[in-house]
Amino acid sequence: MRIAVIGVGLIGGSIGMAARQDGLAEVTGFVRKPERGAEAIEVGAIDELAESIPAAVESAEIVFCCASVGAMESVVDEALAAAGPDTVVTDVGSTKQELFAAFGEDPRFIGGHPLAGSETAGVTNARADLYEGARWYLTPGPNASGLLLDRLQKFISSIGARPMAIEAGEHDRAMAEVSHLPHVFANQLARQGVDGTERLGALAPSLRDATRVAGANPAIWQEIFATNREALTEAIGVAIEGLEEARAVISSGDPDRIGAWQEEARKVRTRLSAVETEAGPTRELRVVVPNRPGVLAEVALALGGAGVNIVDMSLDPAKDMSSGAISVWVAGESEARRAEEVLDGLGHPVTIPDQT
Amino acid sequence: MRIAVIGVGLIGGSIGMAARQDGLAEVTGFVRKPERGAEAIEVGAIDELAESIPAAVESAEIVFCCASVGAMESVVDEALAAAGPDTVVTDVGSTKQELFAAFGEDPRFIGGHPLAGSETAGVTNARADLYEGARWYLTPGPNASGLLLDRLQKFISSIGARPMAIEAGEHDRAMAEVSHLPHVFANQLARQGVDGTERLGALAPSLRDATRVAGANPAIWQEIFATNREALTEAIGVAIEGLEEARAVISSGDPDRIGAWQEEARKVRTRLSAVETEAGPTRELRVVVPNRPGVLAEVALALGGAGVNIVDMSLDPAKDMSSGAISVWVAGESEARRAEEVLDGLGHPVTIPDQT
Repeated sequence: MRIAVIGVGLIGGSIGMAARQDGLAEVTGFVRKPERGAEAIEVGAIDELAESIPAAVESAEIVFCCASVGAMESVVDEALAAAGPDTVVTDVGSTKQELFAAFGEDPRFIGGHPLAGSETAGVTNARADLYEGARWYLTPGPNASGLLLDRLQKFISSIGARPMAIEAGEHDRAMAEVSHLPHVFANQLARQGVDGTERLGALAPSLRDATRVAGANPAIWQEIFATNREALTEAIGVAIEGLEEARAVISSGDPDRIGAWQEEARKVRTRLSAVETEAGPTRELRVVVPNRPGVLAEVALALGGAGVNIVDMSLDPAKDMSSGAISVWVAGESEARRAEEVLDGLGHPVTIPDQT
Repeated sequence: MRIAVIGVGLIGGSIGMAARQDGLAEVTGFVRKPERGAEAIEVGAIDELAESIPAAVESAEIVFCCASVGAMESVVDEALAAAGPDTVVTDVGSTKQELFAAFGEDPRFIGGHPLAGSETAGVTNARADLYEGARWYLTPGPNASGLLLDRLQKFISSIGARPMAIEAGEHDRAMAEVSHLPHVFANQLARQGVDGTERLGALAPSLRDATRVAGANPAIWQEIFATNREALTEAIGVAIEGLEEARAVISSGDPDRIGAWQEEARKVRTRLSAVETEAGPTRELRVVVPNRPGVLAEVALALGGAGVNIVDMSLDPAKDMSSGAISVWVAGESEARRAEEVLDGLGHPVTIPDQT
């Protein structure tokens, strides 16, 4: 297999390194600045350098567009224009709705977003294990090719990440609340806490944790905030309402009322921690689906929407191509049961092969 | 020396252990529940158990009141009623203004607040090194006895902490912004982020850091929030204004404007980090002051107000007791210069002894 990495920094370079280290693919890279290309080869992130995006895309089975969020649309556009019908083009940007609006109809485009590596930048910080255990969101559109989605998911699993399909708008709304809003809060806390911290001569541990991402890479984050401004603006509005409620509770001075409010937050915190706990051994589910465009994306999105983590997936088309069997591997018994319900709900009969 | 610890949990127990381990003092403890007393002796937090607060306070040179914030006022009241004129009574609560209003006139009372140990509780988690390097705020009133403040500061330094004097109201306003508001923000982020986190099947690193203290010990925090409700209510109001500004900036979608806002947060974050960096070798300043009540508290508060960290302090009264020399040790050349300015400003001539 050959993959193309357009933009070989921390993110793209780590994809290339992982692919090369495990012998998964040969890697063609493209960079805007020639001096970056020599670096990319030297650290082992790519096998060879292409002189243009079309040259990099030629003969690649997967194209990873690793530009900054603001430059992503034009890079994806150029990659899709040059790619053949059997090439999947994906990206690694933190927001997905704008790209989806532009390219979501193309069966070859599947947006992506790995949750990894925001503190450093540059190919010299790239590492083959950057994606080990990392969640990697994929946002296939309704026309996405099942074969291409399958190939992309397999590759992402092979480099150690955990792919999960999610609808692009849903991804952006969720990211606004779990990532972009925490960045906005960190900025506000840093601003508001700096005078007190200097007067107190010490950085309180809670403020240290809460401001770790304050003012994170302005070049990157101005684009993330700008492209997700609608969902984030709404999230900030909800946050302001929540803080107004907190103010009312606290200013009451009523210990019972304040205690109940704090206790509720404690319960929510417990739910947050539970999301990260291990799920158990991998289970396989087998489902037969009609061989029509978009069916794999539909299955992946439905499982992702139910919070089911697909550890692996494989396609097995029938000889006459009228239907196909999909094997889905999920982590743990309870996820397997949830997956079975979801697939039954879609009208696809599920069988669970013997665990031999 | 003998000290009394009223309430022997994590905080009080660690004070006792540190004092005993370093041979600084014998420790008399008092606990409300007798079974806790056996535990306290077993883990080595105290030498002996007293049957009442007056019995514990008797013959103690320093009394540490380590009740919960809500119960602190009655404990301090009982301790002061039983203590002689040469006993300093202090506490360890996270808010200082309410106690100051009740006891700030008493020359024997000096409020305290060590920044340590909020995640666990109970004497079984106590450790002799809990205060190693920890900031420890002291809030002496205008009548505070210089001798007693000096004794308390020395003891706190001896167990490894870094005492710093600050006016009680100022302490509470600053804590509202550097600690209590981050807790309120963490609660809001946890509430708002939990659904997205469950849908996304992963806890984003920024949300994990930002919610570490969400729902922190409700029994403790309902009292902290309640006793500091005025300053915290105001801080939440400022935060809401800041978030409204952030919303306006982000919804503009203007990358330059968003970038400038993010860049400003980055600069503030750098200032926050700088507060924690090392200051350099210790310098001594010597100042002669009139021997009148409150002069030492005035000096300590002025230095604390200027952000000068007093590493150590010692008193040396003149034979006729009409004046006294105070030696103040501060960390680093720039702190020494700032301290000199502050002391000159108070009208106390400063000399800097030879560094031999």
